[in-house]
Amino acid sequence: MQCKFLDSIITYDGSQLRPRFACQNHSVIGNSVVAFIGPCNVSFQHMKDLEDLNSGSKICGDLMLHFICELFDTSVMAAVGLQRLIASIVKDEIESAVKNVRLIRTGDDLYWNDQKLSISIACPSIGSSLIHFAVNISNSGTPVKTCSLQDFAVEPRPFAEKILKKIVDEWESMENAKVKALPSL
Amino acid sequence: MQCKFLDSIITYDGSQLRPRFACQNHSVIGNSVVAFIGPCNVSFQHMKDLEDLNSGSKICGDLMLHFICELFDTSVMAAVGLQRLIASIVKDEIESAVKNVRLIRTGDDLYWNDQKLSISIACPSIGSSLIHFAVNISNSGTPVKTCSLQDFAVEPRPFAEKILKKIVDEWESMENAKVKALPSL
Amino acid sequence: MQCKFLDSIITYDGSQLRPRFACQNHSVIGNSVVAFIGPCNVSFQHMKDLEDLNSGSKICGDLMLHFICELFDTSVMAAVGLQRLIASIVKDEIESAVKNVRLIRTGDDLYWNDQKLSISIACPSIGSSLIHFAVNISNSGTPVKTCSLQDFAVEPRPFAEKILKKIVDEWESMENAKVKALPSL
Amino acid sequence: MQCKFLDSIITYDGSQLRPRFACQNHSVIGNSVVAFIGPCNVSFQHMKDLEDLNSGSKICGDLMLHFICELFDTSVMAAVGLQRLIASIVKDEIESAVKNVRLIRTGDDLYWNDQKLSISIACPSIGSSLIHFAVNISNSGTPVKTCSLQDFAVEPRPFAEKILKKIVDEWESMENAKVKALPSL
Amino acid sequence: MQCKFLDSIITYDGSQLRPRFACQNHSVIGNSVVAFIGPCNVSFQHMKDLEDLNSGSKICGDLMLHFICELFDTSVMAAVGLQRLIASIVKDEIESAVKNVRLIRTGDDLYWNDQKLSISIACPSIGSSLIHFAVNISNSGTPVKTCSLQDFAVEPRPFAEKILKKIVDEWESMENAKVKALPSL
Amino acid sequence: MQCKFLDSIITYDGSQLRPRFACQNHSVIGNSVVAFIGPCNVSFQHMKDLEDLNSGSKICGDLMLHFICELFDTSVMAAVGLQRLIASIVKDEIESAVKNVRLIRTGDDLYWNDQKLSISIACPSIGSSLIHFAVNISNSGTPVKTCSLQDFAVEPRPFAEKILKKIVDEWESMENAKVKALPSL
Repeated sequence: MQCKFLDSIITYDGSQLRPRFACQNHSVIGNSVVAFIGPCNVSFQHMKDLEDLNSGSKICGDLMLHFICELFDTSVMAAVGLQRLIASIVKDEIESAVKNVRLIRTGDDLYWNDQKLSISIACPSIGSSLIHFAVNISNSGTPVKTCSLQDFAVEPRPFAEKILKKIVDEWESMENAKVKALPSL
Repeated sequence: MQCKFLDSIITYDGSQLRPRFACQNHSVIGNSVVAFIGPCNVSFQHMKDLEDLNSGSKICGDLMLHFICELFDTSVMAAVGLQRLIASIVKDEIESAVKNVRLIRTGDDLYWNDQKLSISIACPSIGSSLIHFAVNISNSGTPVKTCSLQDFAVEPRPFAEKILKKIVDEWESMENAKVKALPSL
Repeated sequence: MQCKFLDSIITYDGSQLRPRFACQNHSVIGNSVVAFIGPCNVSFQHMKDLEDLNSGSKICGDLMLHFICELFDTSVMAAVGLQRLIASIVKDEIESAVKNVRLIRTGDDLYWNDQKLSISIACPSIGSSLIHFAVNISNSGTPVKTCSLQDFAVEPRPFAEKILKKIVDEWESMENAKVKALPSL
Repeated sequence: MQCKFLDSIITYDGSQLRPRFACQNHSVIGNSVVAFIGPCNVSFQHMKDLEDLNSGSKICGDLMLHFICELFDTSVMAAVGLQRLIASIVKDEIESAVKNVRLIRTGDDLYWNDQKLSISIACPSIGSSLIHFAVNISNSGTPVKTCSLQDFAVEPRPFAEKILKKIVDEWESMENAKVKALPSL
Repeated sequence: MQCKFLDSIITYDGSQLRPRFACQNHSVIGNSVVAFIGPCNVSFQHMKDLEDLNSGSKICGDLMLHFICELFDTSVMAAVGLQRLIASIVKDEIESAVKNVRLIRTGDDLYWNDQKLSISIACPSIGSSLIHFAVNISNSGTPVKTCSLQDFAVEPRPFAEKILKKIVDEWESMENAKVKALPSL
Repeated sequence: MQCKFLDSIITYDGSQLRPRFACQNHSVIGNSVVAFIGPCNVSFQHMKDLEDLNSGSKICGDLMLHFICELFDTSVMAAVGLQRLIASIVKDEIESAVKNVRLIRTGDDLYWNDQKLSISIACPSIGSSLIHFAVNISNSGTPVKTCSLQDFAVEPRPFAEKILKKIVDEWESMENAKVKALPSL
């Protein structure tokens, strides 16, 4: 799995959650995860979560840290699995970096008490599955009660690079686990 | 996903990690997770992890809490994903039950400092994928430096039932996440 | 599998045969079948059957009973199989309700002598397969020689609810059959 | 799909439900259905249906007409679908050949009132899925209340050949339906 | 696998590389390969190769021999495999027809010394995978240093028909190889 | 894809064509190809090719160069595709190394006039597909008219290492081709 931190500020509007985004725009090919910093403002046209669409929820925030994964040759359920492991990785990283903070992972969401830290969606595409996972950098512009990396005094850029590396390690050790097990008859 | 706690003591020798085990022996059908308490002593014949087989490692313990999952219609990578989410669920449950204990998840393993709490394997079968995940109830008879539920004063039976429920919730919310996302073109 | 009878009159124009239709518009999630009553008038843009498209056939009728299924995590051939089982279920239901009527199933079509009762298509989508199956409620506005529920004095609404239940039973017993069989080596 | 009627009497003991049986023993390759006449006596070792295994049911009969299908490159659910369509085909054929007989299909079983006509199982294998479907030729030696082709004065051999042809037609028209549908976006 | 040589001149602009093209426009259904002669001028909108898109390459030529394959029920990697076997088939055919010419196959490209003979892409679609493979008939209008069938005095039409037949033979013998091998446990 | 030349002489008896052979015995994990030199003598128990089994053919030779591939997460047809590309690679390598020799590839077989150079089989396993491809080093002990590397004065060991490298390059460029193509709608 390749990874890359994209240096420019990019507004996540949902159009980035498309097949071969990382390859077409950032020369990252194959199973991949890219991270970038920018506002979040997902148009209805690009919303993938039918709960949000049906309820008319806004998906927005003035500054977030975004991760976009593309996974080939596997099931959507494997992408949903990785999505939640990313949530778990982010939780573990913040808890080990920040004293006395305990986050709660519920499905693909992370909470600090009743404050939401993250948004996420996984969806199928043609020939691959896609994941968007994003954490608030600030609480400004969010449509619900949130917490953010600023609340934990976590610097986004080095945090992003640690998480990128841990996602790659997780997926590669998953691949490794898969191929070193004998089948059961 | 169906779940069941099996009341009788069962020695896990690896033969339980076979397709339709829960259905054939315990009337639990379809996607399933069953838990039981018993010794662990995996014969070479039933070892699935080639790292263990190649290194001649023993897989044993005098008393462990075992979970066996069977997943249909998905990829092995989804099973490997759930395997690690089970590790994450066990970690979160112990940390929330026991004051000041922090566990580390590394892949599908859980550690308390340098003491290993768990063993696990996921493997493909015909028509399904299988997971074995087990945590030490005592440290007796383990081949490496371990920790156990006894070290944390955690009662195995109610703990097992909480974890069973959380595994079912996790998988069902993953299924739900999968079917409520629009595809990306 | 969830099912729902949609109370409002809906004109089937082919746009309903899209991924997550039942979830997006009617809060029915996962494997699903929904039924509704309404005219049928499929635009060329939404025709999926290349035989119809290539021959310039019209797909229309003034009043039909429509069923739309979405199936996840399986092959298109399983959807094609269910499509024909729906035809078989409809045939059996009409034959048991109406004295001395014998229908003929040919592939996914139902005939009463040379009068066509139904139209159907199954097609792949992203992350799911889709089925449209519809029976004439009246013979008005149909482009070929047809028969209809009115010919058999069958009330559409209770008939729809019986068929919905039988489709759900069929699929769930198929799922059950799949997971209770040992693999063959 | 190739088909063949095997002229010799073969006792079905369950060992015939294995991958490449028709190819290895009868030179029928690829997607296939073969039929033969013979007793049925399935040993516990070869029973695939866990309901039968768990209940200790016998699967036997002194004379049955057997069909064995092998399907490549599709899901087990497609095989389960074809299995039930075979039941539907057999039902339609008997009903059209025998005056005033109405059979009931329940899942993969056929009944005449409370008398069971058929047995069936579908199971996954490696690289293919397998179906066994058999109808009683006589009621002798059956473990439950049954009916048989003799009750309907149906000659097994020509009946077998008609059914073989209809199974091939069904599968090939399913294949055809699959490839002539445009995908839905 | 069905094949067809399309008699009319068709400009390949990339829009032909779509699901069910051969079925919708030329009555060739299922796994298929069609060939036609015409200019090549792929618009950016229809470019599938991200290397070309990212580098701004032109994909064009005044006269080429085009092959378009559609493969159902298999992986994209099988389509990529067939794509390269088509290159190998074209190489073998030219080498056996033309004295002292040796071509080099590199991936899906064919070269005569440093002159490029062919272009190709394989891509996933919904329910099928697609291949475009084309060889220059003349060197006119090509954006790089090329060779062409004219350089080898090879008549396009009979050459096309030989290659069509060899592609069909290759795929059908691959299908045959697949179904006549016992699985390995 | 990992590759390895195994230094010891190994008799290929068919038992090596099993899932995880390279991992379990030679620490080569994941998609892999290993090569070794040794006699060939496949017992009936390990024969996978039903044509050989049905015809009672012997599969043997006193000295052959063997390649064993294991491919995860793809279809058997992709393995059959790679199998034939290996034949094509071996053909190209010998033709470029040896003056005036032209080999013929027919499916997965290589011939020099009417002398057979190679044997091969691809088969499905659980979680992976397997390929055995072998070329004669000498003509001694072969059951049919053969040619061998000795006829071409090709040293087996450096030849094996070149072919290993080309197989890895082929598969990795196929993987690369797969992930850099946009899907077609």
